[in-house]
Amino acid sequence: MEKGLILWFTGLSGAGKTTISKVVAEKLKQRGQKVEILDGDIVRENLSKGLTFSKEDRDINIRRIGFVAHLLSRNGVVAITAAISPYKAIRNEIREMYDNFIEVYINAPLEVCEQRDVKGLYAKARSGEIKNFTGIDDPYEPPDNPEITCCTDQESLDESVAHVISSLEKYGYLT
Amino acid sequence: MEKGLILWFTGLSGAGKTTISKVVAEKLKQRGQKVEILDGDIVRENLSKGLTFSKEDRDINIRRIGFVAHLLSRNGVVAITAAISPYKAIRNEIREMYDNFIEVYINAPLEVCEQRDVKGLYAKARSGEIKNFTGIDDPYEPPDNPEITCCTDQESLDESVAHVISSLEKYGYLT
Repeated sequence: MEKGLILWFTGLSGAGKTTISKVVAEKLKQRGQKVEILDGDIVRENLSKGLTFSKEDRDINIRRIGFVAHLLSRNGVVAITAAISPYKAIRNEIREMYDNFIEVYINAPLEVCEQRDVKGLYAKARSGEIKNFTGIDDPYEPPDNPEITCCTDQESLDESVAHVISSLEKYGYLT
Repeated sequence: MEKGLILWFTGLSGAGKTTISKVVAEKLKQRGQKVEILDGDIVRENLSKGLTFSKEDRDINIRRIGFVAHLLSRNGVVAITAAISPYKAIRNEIREMYDNFIEVYINAPLEVCEQRDVKGLYAKARSGEIKNFTGIDDPYEPPDNPEITCCTDQESLDESVAHVISSLEKYGYLT
């Protein structure tokens, strides 16, 4: 297949976006698909250095990710974005602007994400060392109708990955 | 062919980067190649809004273009960049970082570009309305050893385009 798409992961820090996206990417590559992961941290480093975590700057960051994902997807690449992207309106803006947009909600309760605290960021947010941290002192707006939802507190990594892949088959993006 | 590359146009405003890049893109598409043009203005709008034309901000802008061009080229796309990119060091940084980098120097004397003044920018730079304008009150550093040079004051558009295409064949990027 040579059909590109934008696989837009959204969810709290620690919900499992990066972990799932990496395994999904491997599975797709095994099927001969071209894949790029636009991870939140990598994009901040390469496209958005200097931007803060204010709502305005987050929106600018998300628009840039959307622009690059679009350039890739229209050339046959599955562009997987794995940034928190907490605001519904901007995610919907991207959905409206570009074709083949699939929203993947990586859903885990805040308590679970905070308990995992893989990067130690929740502790810093609770102590006030980090400001504007999504879920703590900044909002996260879950999608109303995501094409795919993975509940990572209730399913294994393998189950989440299988669910993403089978959903892409169901939607006709994979044969 | 599915070989991607970064076709990096550099040259003064009005030298002919955008014009030549568009026709080259068409020729490549006719040969079945995937192509994206990362034009200076489009990139400023979508990836670098808010950046100035200081040396520091220009370098950031060029690094972003390089990053996106690399994402495209490693997925089999010919990424044509058409920003002025006046500084040699940052162009060479991009060359070192990424594979399949081809520098295309669109060379026309400043007097010729200023006489063309397609966008009316030279007049504004001369009057002081625009500051840090390349060639007027900001430097342009020509490449030492570009893979391809087009002298647009001495050759027609068709000749420049033919020269770019035949050079890509010579370098083994087109069959």
